[in-house]
Amino acid sequence: MEHLDPVILVSHRGPLQHRLEGGRRVAERGAGGLVTALSHLADHLEEATWVCAALSEEDEAVAAEAPGGFPLDAGRSGVRVRMVPVDAEAHRRFYGVIANPLLWFIQHSLWDLAVAPDITAEVLDAWEAGYRPVNERFADEVVQEVAARGGRATVMVHDYHFYLLPALVRDRCPDVFVHHFVHIPWPQPDGWRVLPPTLREAVFTGLLGCDAVAFHTERYARNFLLGCQELLGLPIDLAALTVDTGRRQVAARWYPISVDAAAFDALAASPGVRRAEEELVATRREHLVVRVDRTDPSKNILRGFRAFDLLLSEHPELAKRVTFLAFLQPSRQDVGEYADHTEAIRRLAADVNQAHGTPDWQPIDLRLGEDLDFAVAAYKQFDVLVVNGIFDGMNLVAKEAVLVNQRDGVLALSENTGAHEELGAFAVTLHPFDLVQQADALYRALTMDRAERKDRREACAAVVRENDVTKWFRRQLADLEELRAGDG
Amino acid sequence: MEHLDPVILVSHRGPLQHRLEGGRRVAERGAGGLVTALSHLADHLEEATWVCAALSEEDEAVAAEAPGGFPLDAGRSGVRVRMVPVDAEAHRRFYGVIANPLLWFIQHSLWDLAVAPDITAEVLDAWEAGYRPVNERFADEVVQEVAARGGRATVMVHDYHFYLLPALVRDRCPDVFVHHFVHIPWPQPDGWRVLPPTLREAVFTGLLGCDAVAFHTERYARNFLLGCQELLGLPIDLAALTVDTGRRQVAARWYPISVDAAAFDALAASPGVRRAEEELVATRREHLVVRVDRTDPSKNILRGFRAFDLLLSEHPELAKRVTFLAFLQPSRQDVGEYADHTEAIRRLAADVNQAHGTPDWQPIDLRLGEDLDFAVAAYKQFDVLVVNGIFDGMNLVAKEAVLVNQRDGVLALSENTGAHEELGAFAVTLHPFDLVQQADALYRALTMDRAERKDRREACAAVVRENDVTKWFRRQLADLEELRAGDG
Repeated sequence: MEHLDPVILVSHRGPLQHRLEGGRRVAERGAGGLVTALSHLADHLEEATWVCAALSEEDEAVAAEAPGGFPLDAGRSGVRVRMVPVDAEAHRRFYGVIANPLLWFIQHSLWDLAVAPDITAEVLDAWEAGYRPVNERFADEVVQEVAARGGRATVMVHDYHFYLLPALVRDRCPDVFVHHFVHIPWPQPDGWRVLPPTLREAVFTGLLGCDAVAFHTERYARNFLLGCQELLGLPIDLAALTVDTGRRQVAARWYPISVDAAAFDALAASPGVRRAEEELVATRREHLVVRVDRTDPSKNILRGFRAFDLLLSEHPELAKRVTFLAFLQPSRQDVGEYADHTEAIRRLAADVNQAHGTPDWQPIDLRLGEDLDFAVAAYKQFDVLVVNGIFDGMNLVAKEAVLVNQRDGVLALSENTGAHEELGAFAVTLHPFDLVQQADALYRALTMDRAERKDRREACAAVVRENDVTKWFRRQLADLEELRAGDG
Repeated sequence: MEHLDPVILVSHRGPLQHRLEGGRRVAERGAGGLVTALSHLADHLEEATWVCAALSEEDEAVAAEAPGGFPLDAGRSGVRVRMVPVDAEAHRRFYGVIANPLLWFIQHSLWDLAVAPDITAEVLDAWEAGYRPVNERFADEVVQEVAARGGRATVMVHDYHFYLLPALVRDRCPDVFVHHFVHIPWPQPDGWRVLPPTLREAVFTGLLGCDAVAFHTERYARNFLLGCQELLGLPIDLAALTVDTGRRQVAARWYPISVDAAAFDALAASPGVRRAEEELVATRREHLVVRVDRTDPSKNILRGFRAFDLLLSEHPELAKRVTFLAFLQPSRQDVGEYADHTEAIRRLAADVNQAHGTPDWQPIDLRLGEDLDFAVAAYKQFDVLVVNGIFDGMNLVAKEAVLVNQRDGVLALSENTGAHEELGAFAVTLHPFDLVQQADALYRALTMDRAERKDRREACAAVVRENDVTKWFRRQLADLEELRAGDG
C-alpha cells in the first residue's frame, strides 16, 4: 500500500482520550468496535492523520498545545492524531440532539412516528448551530491537513456524525479522494421523510461529495442509492451500485466490518478473563444463555426476555437448568428515553424471575455494568448467544463471541443485523418481533445435538477468521485504488 | 365496456347494510370513500356481483335467505350483492387483530418498533384461525360465482382484508383475470419485516395470484415491486412495473382514487348542508382553519394542534381572528390505543385553548362526531384546510373539500398523502413531522393574497374534476382490457 496517498481519517471518537491522574496527563486507548477497527487500520498505514474530537478537558489542553496534531504511540505507527476542540454548546446540539437521538433513531427505525419526533425550533437550531458548524469545523481541519500534504490525500470519514463533511471538503479540495463509511443501518428512503426536505437533502448531498460511500451490507448500499433516486431524483444503477450526481459518479460499496481475531484470542486467554470465567463456571447451570449489549432500544432486550419467559412457560423441564445471563452496559442514561428503557429492562427481568424463579434459582441474571473481561468470559461460556436486534448495522458481539466460545455454543441471530448476511447460514435465525419464533429458536438451540452445534460454531468462527478486520480494510483500500484508477 | 367479462367485486364492507327498524328490514347505503367509489364503479357495469361480509345480524339473515345473492336496487343496476356470513370469532381475529391494527399499522408506519408489535401466539392464531379462513371463505364464494358464469370472470378484490384471496382464486380458476386494489399506503420492503417470513411471504404471494395489483400512487406500486425483489427474490422491472413470478408476469399499476364531482356538488347545495353552513357563517371569525378526519393516529392531529399553537405564539396579531375547527370522527374507540389517542387529542386542544384563549374566543373548536352535512359545510367555509397526515393512502377529504369550497380556501397538504402527487403543485405542502414548517405554512396560507388563493383553489378543483372517480375506474377497465389482450 505504499502507493496510497496520505490518509486523513475522520471520526468523532479518536484512538485515545486524555485525563489527569494525580496531576499527570494519562492517555487511554479508546474503546468500542469502531475505534478498535480504525486503530488497526491506522496501524497498517504508512502516513495517516486521525482527526477526532477533543472530548475531555485534557484532550482540549492537548489540542491547544498541538493544534496541528501529535504522533500516536510516540511515532512508532506513522499516525498522527489531530484533536479538534468543539464549543461545548455546539457539541451538545451536534451530538445530543442531532446525531443521537435524531439520526440514530431514524437509521434504526426506532421513532414512534405517531408521537415522535417533533421537528421543532430546537431541532432546527441544533442543526444550524450544532451539526452543521461542527461538520464545517472538522472540514476546516481536514482541508488544512490536505493543504499540508500538497493537496493530495485520501480522506476517510466515519459514521453518522459527519454526513455534511464530504461535500464541504470536496468543494475546497476537488482532487482528493473522499470516502465515507456509515457504521449503522441505512434505512429505506421513506425512513428519511421524518426529516424536512432541507435536512434530508443535506444528508444525501453531503455524502455525495464522496467518491465512494461504504456500508456494512449490500442492503444498506442499495437503500442509499434508492434514497438518491427517490429523494433527490438522481439516476442510479443498482447493478453497478453507482449514482450519477450530474457532475460525478459516486459508488456505493459494502464491506462488513469485523474483529481482530488474533487479538481477541489473546484477550480470551488473558488472566483477567480466566478469573471471570472461573466465577461463571463455578455458578453456572447446565445451560447458559447469554446476551451482551448496550441498553439501546435497537438491541431488543425486552422482547428477548419475553421470549425467554415464554420458553420457560412452555418447557417447565428447563426450570433450574437454564440461566439467561444478560450483561448490559447502561447507555446514554442522561437521555430520558434511555433511562426509562433501562428501568423497563429491570422491571421485566424482575417480573420473569418472580414468575418462574425459585429460592435458589433466578432465571434471568441481569447485570448492568461495563467489564470487558467478564463479557469475554461470558462469550467463552455461552451455550446460546442471543442477538435479536430490531435493526443493527453489523453487531460485533456476534463475531467476537463465536470466535472464542468454548462450548460449541449456538449463535441465535436476528435477521435484521448486518452480521446475518455472513453468519445467518450457520446461526439459528431470530425474527426480532416474533416472540413465539424466538422462544422456539431458543429451545431448538438449547436442545441441538453436540455435533451440529460444533459444526455450526466452527463454521461461524471460520467465517469471522477469514473475513477479519484486516480483510475489511484491505478490501476498502484495494477498491480505493481501483476507483481512483478509474477516475484518471 | 360491453366486452368485459362479468365482474366479481370483493370488499369487506358492501354497498349496503341491513337492520331492523320497528320489525321491518331496512337497507342503508354504506358510507366511506371506498364503498362510495365502488358503488359508482358497479353502476357502470352491465353484470357484476359484489361479494362482501354480512356485518349485521340482519345482513346474516339476508345471507341465509339468499346465499347466492340478491339484486341491488331492485335490479335497476345489473349488480347483485352476495353477503358472506363469517363466524364472529373468526371475524374478530381477521378484522380486530390482523387487518386492524397489525396490517394497518405496518402500512402506515405507525408501530413503535422498540415496544410493539409483539408477534405472539394470539397474533399467529388470529392469522391461522381468522385472516386465512376468512380469505378462504371469500375465495370459495368467488369460485362459486366464477363457476356460475361458466368459468369466465374478472375478479376485482379490494384492500388489506384480502391479501391471500387472489392466489386462492387463481389456484382454482386459472383462467380468470384477477385484480387487487390496495387503498392504503404500501410501505417499503423493510416495513414488512415486522411480520415473520411466513406471514409476509403469504401477503406477497397471495397478491401475486393477481394479473395486476393496483395502488393509488406510483410510489406504492414501486414499493410493492421492491418488496417482491427483496423479500421474495423475484426479478422485477421498475420501468415496465412488472414482476416475474416464474410462472407469470404480474403488473403493478396505479390509479389515484377520486370522488364523484357532480354528486358532491349536489350534496354541497343540499338544504342540510346549507343549514349547517349558516350556523358556521354566523359564528365564524375572520379566518377559519378546518380539518375533517377520523381520530386515527395516521392523521397526525396532535402535531397539527402543536403547529397551530406555535402559529398563535409567533403571531399574536391572529388572536381572536382565527379558529381551528377540528371536526373529528372518533374511530375504533373499542381499541385501547385509539381511545387513548382521542383522549390525547382532547387534552391537547384544551391545553392550547387554555394557553391562548380568551373568555370569548377558543382558538381550537374541537368537535367529535359524525355529520356529513356539517363536514361539507366546513369544506365550503374553510380558509385553510389542514391535511397533515403522517402517511395516508390518498386522502379524499382534500379532494372533496377543494371541489366545493366557497372562499378560495388554501389546501395545506402533507407530502406523504397520495393526493399530494396530484394536488401538491397547487397546495401549500406540509412536512408532517416539522412543527416549525407547518406553522409557517399555515401563516403563509392565511396571509396569501386573494388572487393566488383563487388560482390555486381553482387549479386543485380542476384536477379533481378532470380526474374524478369515473376516470379512476375507466382507466382500470381500459388497462384490464389491454393486459388481458397481452395475455392472449
